[in-house]
Amino acid sequence: MANSKYGYVKNFELPDPVLPDTFMLFRLDGHSFHRFLNSLAALPRSDANTRFTDVHGFEKPNDVRALELMDHAARSVMEEYPDIVLAFGESDEYSFLLKRSTSLYNRRESKIVTTLTSLFTSCYVLYWPKYFPDKPLQYPPSFDGRIVPYPAERHIRDYFAWRQADTHINNLYNTTFWALVQQGGQTTTEAHATLRGTFSKDKHEILYSRFKINYNQLDARYRKGSILVREEEPEVPEAQSEARSEGQAPEGPMTETMTASSTDATPSSVVLTEPAQPKEKKNKKASKKAKPATLIVLLHCDIIKDDFWNERPTLLAH
Amino acid sequence: MANSKYGYVKNFELPDPVLPDTFMLFRLDGHSFHRFLNSLAALPRSDANTRFTDVHGFEKPNDVRALELMDHAARSVMEEYPDIVLAFGESDEYSFLLKRSTSLYNRRESKIVTTLTSLFTSCYVLYWPKYFPDKPLQYPPSFDGRIVPYPAERHIRDYFAWRQADTHINNLYNTTFWALVQQGGQTTTEAHATLRGTFSKDKHEILYSRFKINYNQLDARYRKGSILVREEEPEVPEAQSEARSEGQAPEGPMTETMTASSTDATPSSVVLTEPAQPKEKKNKKASKKAKPATLIVLLHCDIIKDDFWNERPTLLAH
Amino acid sequence: MANSKYGYVKNFELPDPVLPDTFMLFRLDGHSFHRFLNSLAALPRSDANTRFTDVHGFEKPNDVRALELMDHAARSVMEEYPDIVLAFGESDEYSFLLKRSTSLYNRRESKIVTTLTSLFTSCYVLYWPKYFPDKPLQYPPSFDGRIVPYPAERHIRDYFAWRQADTHINNLYNTTFWALVQQGGQTTTEAHATLRGTFSKDKHEILYSRFKINYNQLDARYRKGSILVREEEPEVPEAQSEARSEGQAPEGPMTETMTASSTDATPSSVVLTEPAQPKEKKNKKASKKAKPATLIVLLHCDIIKDDFWNERPTLLAH
Amino acid sequence: MANSKYGYVKNFELPDPVLPDTFMLFRLDGHSFHRFLNSLAALPRSDANTRFTDVHGFEKPNDVRALELMDHAARSVMEEYPDIVLAFGESDEYSFLLKRSTSLYNRRESKIVTTLTSLFTSCYVLYWPKYFPDKPLQYPPSFDGRIVPYPAERHIRDYFAWRQADTHINNLYNTTFWALVQQGGQTTTEAHATLRGTFSKDKHEILYSRFKINYNQLDARYRKGSILVREEEPEVPEAQSEARSEGQAPEGPMTETMTASSTDATPSSVVLTEPAQPKEKKNKKASKKAKPATLIVLLHCDIIKDDFWNERPTLLAH
Repeated sequence: MANSKYGYVKNFELPDPVLPDTFMLFRLDGHSFHRFLNSLAALPRSDANTRFTDVHGFEKPNDVRALELMDHAARSVMEEYPDIVLAFGESDEYSFLLKRSTSLYNRRESKIVTTLTSLFTSCYVLYWPKYFPDKPLQYPPSFDGRIVPYPAERHIRDYFAWRQADTHINNLYNTTFWALVQQGGQTTTEAHATLRGTFSKDKHEILYSRFKINYNQLDARYRKGSILVREEEPEVPEAQSEARSEGQAPEGPMTETMTASSTDATPSSVVLTEPAQPKEKKNKKASKKAKPATLIVLLHCDIIKDDFWNERPTLLAH
Repeated sequence: MANSKYGYVKNFELPDPVLPDTFMLFRLDGHSFHRFLNSLAALPRSDANTRFTDVHGFEKPNDVRALELMDHAARSVMEEYPDIVLAFGESDEYSFLLKRSTSLYNRRESKIVTTLTSLFTSCYVLYWPKYFPDKPLQYPPSFDGRIVPYPAERHIRDYFAWRQADTHINNLYNTTFWALVQQGGQTTTEAHATLRGTFSKDKHEILYSRFKINYNQLDARYRKGSILVREEEPEVPEAQSEARSEGQAPEGPMTETMTASSTDATPSSVVLTEPAQPKEKKNKKASKKAKPATLIVLLHCDIIKDDFWNERPTLLAH
Repeated sequence: MANSKYGYVKNFELPDPVLPDTFMLFRLDGHSFHRFLNSLAALPRSDANTRFTDVHGFEKPNDVRALELMDHAARSVMEEYPDIVLAFGESDEYSFLLKRSTSLYNRRESKIVTTLTSLFTSCYVLYWPKYFPDKPLQYPPSFDGRIVPYPAERHIRDYFAWRQADTHINNLYNTTFWALVQQGGQTTTEAHATLRGTFSKDKHEILYSRFKINYNQLDARYRKGSILVREEEPEVPEAQSEARSEGQAPEGPMTETMTASSTDATPSSVVLTEPAQPKEKKNKKASKKAKPATLIVLLHCDIIKDDFWNERPTLLAH
Repeated sequence: MANSKYGYVKNFELPDPVLPDTFMLFRLDGHSFHRFLNSLAALPRSDANTRFTDVHGFEKPNDVRALELMDHAARSVMEEYPDIVLAFGESDEYSFLLKRSTSLYNRRESKIVTTLTSLFTSCYVLYWPKYFPDKPLQYPPSFDGRIVPYPAERHIRDYFAWRQADTHINNLYNTTFWALVQQGGQTTTEAHATLRGTFSKDKHEILYSRFKINYNQLDARYRKGSILVREEEPEVPEAQSEARSEGQAPEGPMTETMTASSTDATPSSVVLTEPAQPKEKKNKKASKKAKPATLIVLLHCDIIKDDFWNERPTLLAH
């Protein structure tokens, strides 16, 4: 065949398996979004770039529509890839944990990292109009992704703690900064100056004394980020399960948060969202027989302390 | 800082530079598209999966709208990344050549491969309605990507020859197959049986004797695939250049632009497409002083023989 | 400087760090030794290669001098590299475990694997005359090495179990094979035929019924392989410790030292061998103040079951 | 089989092929030799380490026995591995070029780099007594190794230029330094001070005006390093060839050098040295029929300019 004499070029594609029996952590970040959702949004616009966040009229310090779009895209990725057991999102980034034993695409790094990044991007663009019906995309947003292998459970605990601590630090800063600007009448330069060298308690104090804002009562979504966790569906008749997932928030400390997070344009937080693909539907049906169906639950709770993990003893087990 | 005790988890992200002074070839493929544009489209639907191509009503054996959408996305990627000097597309795949000396993202493989895959995906979804105004996307399409490093020019020549030979083989098969089905009244099973064991000349003969189709006179787009090549802009006054590029900006489907595409060697569209991003526009203006602006030209010509390469002696030089 | 225009060639040397916080397992094998010490020694000499083991007159099925030379070289490597906490040898191979937290050579794989392989080789050739005083080396023996990263303790347990099980299987086969040949008068072809399809208990039975050999009473060195483990030195006065280590310094073959090696669980040699290098001596003295000196103990005991590991609870802890 | 449940640990050994169709450059360096042969030998002994070069009584600034031992080990490696076409040595380092198309060990990096490092080390220790009959090795010397892949011929040219320029710079410094100490009566501290900030021409001037040393007339071995190159044996009757290789130096500018470099204890420079291994002998005989035998020639000539390469047009061709 004419083609065969060129086929040798395939040999330059080298194998890139991820080390077996390690946790793969897949993280993606908005590319050139300038951290558009909340963190760092307060940076001085020292360059001439027009930011994605400004072009598209994002609210400061947090735009709930943009965050919910991120959650929607992340949920779609988890629905498509059952080996993702946990995800965490803040601002324009999302992290996904694949279970230790996954053999997805034979653990080929490029295949996994590009496919997941692509699907997330695709969902982000496709679902954009649901969250920004009046703001058509002005140009194509993109994300970069990476996979990091972690040998041990403690690394995974610390990884998620690292991201949630980052969420806290950024959000406290941004919340105070924008209060100073929007309610306090400071310029952005003045607001940065006001915050220079302050500690957490100073920012809490500024928020409370000047603006009557109790930081700890702000929406947990902003303070804690978004956790998507795959949980086994409790054994209930299917119809009842549907009803429950639409109407009812999960029990526990985050109940309030969940209620607040629903808007007309977004999926509610504990649904088995409408499967994105026929294939997905098929798989889900097939799996109903073989093993308990799983729910993907959206939470905005603490994942640094032990409670979250103790309540899910099998989360890191496989 | 509270975050610092977790920061060590960053150390597990290992360096992944691509070997210096090699050509990087970035290829992406439609993920689970089932090769929806033309190649393999004739495969029996032996499984229950509903194909992207069927769900979205793609024409057989080639859907020009889908191919033009691929070209549009590829062109957008090239506009954003000046170090991409050549691209080749067929069906649901596209290959991009980065110049040998590129230092894009410090040649970090994951960063490059995910960012490019993401941007292409984003464009594909964003521009879909222009090409399929009556067919909204039913679910998010995705792509996988990879980067292959090639040490020598001859590998690059052979790589592109490999892809274009593949285009020819697939398109001849599919064209004959669908003629047998659509005009010859065969079932798909019968058509496969008719073609089993045939050589190229047999398929040419079937097309001509039964359906009066001269394969070599079919649109070169289908037979040769799409070549996007960056060429230096001829020296024209700036005002004129601007006017020209504005008048041809892709408001809707690029069909008009493509009219000239029916012979092998002629550029089918020499558009300075509207820059996708404000940032891009800025860069282009800045570069006007420093060096000649580049055009991205769409061709459907032979790239296996020497002519294409001899006419562009600097294409692989850097 | 004249040299600077060429210095760019250093950039092609890519980073190769081993994933942090994984156990590195370094294994080396005799290269083209044809498994000269015991395992596979019974293979038919189907090719014309003259084997190392034959050229140098190794005894069958095991040559204690050759095994002790391997142990000596391995011990020297452990003395030089304190981060090696455990080693296991059989036949012409040796495996070394580096502690999980090691930062040896910044965990650069090539640097570690070549340096350790080189030092072992150097010792093997240098100390050869002590074990084979009448058999000068006929040509330079060489070894190949590799490093395998393991994420979890259970992998390390299983790795060493894998090697010791291999030792057992090979030694039982070889012992029976050579009994049939040397005492039973069979040709090697006949002996292979006799053993084809036999299980372990069959080989035990052949040994006992035909040759009065109780396999389980053979030297544990052959049945269990060699374990070198770093253990903390019991608290003895320094002078006494020095005297002791001097008295047992390997002046010649270690045979005397090894005499006690005939039971499974007893340390066969607890030598503070004479440091190979002045540098080593210096380090050892310096470390006497900082932390307890370590002994490298040679054992021929079971490492598949839990006892060995339970008795050394800190072995895999760091 | 009992072993099978542990066999999974083999899966952690990841593939490590070197990119096809690149030149592999294998370099090894004396480990902790403190650059013992000539370069940097003049460094102040600021630490307490006893250097290999001092312990073993190496002459300053160059010890011809030590350099010849390096050459001997390198030659043995080249004899064993026909895909090595060129080598360059200076001081305690040696670089080996494998031909571009080599499929040695399926281009597995760890396998190649460890086996070559091990064989070199083995030869170094084994042949030590021939060069230092009165100086038994006091401790095991070791080397580290690495493989660097190079895409293009110009990289190889520049690599060897880089090493030979390094040889020149180091040797000129060391020669001047030791002249100041040994003949000029300076302390090493004074000699370093004398040389601080000097250029090449200053050092030439010091050597000539103070010590009547014409640097350019010193043994080319020290100034140019050692080149081992595989060349096709001219078509002469075998007996004659043997005679020639023993008695005759290669024609060209290096003739003088070659003559000077032979001592009783070392192989002459253009011999087909006695094959180190029976296997090697067999191979060489076999290859006599199939293709012209190759000679490994030792040179001390310039490899920075074009002449060396122009005279060997096929050296980098495969």
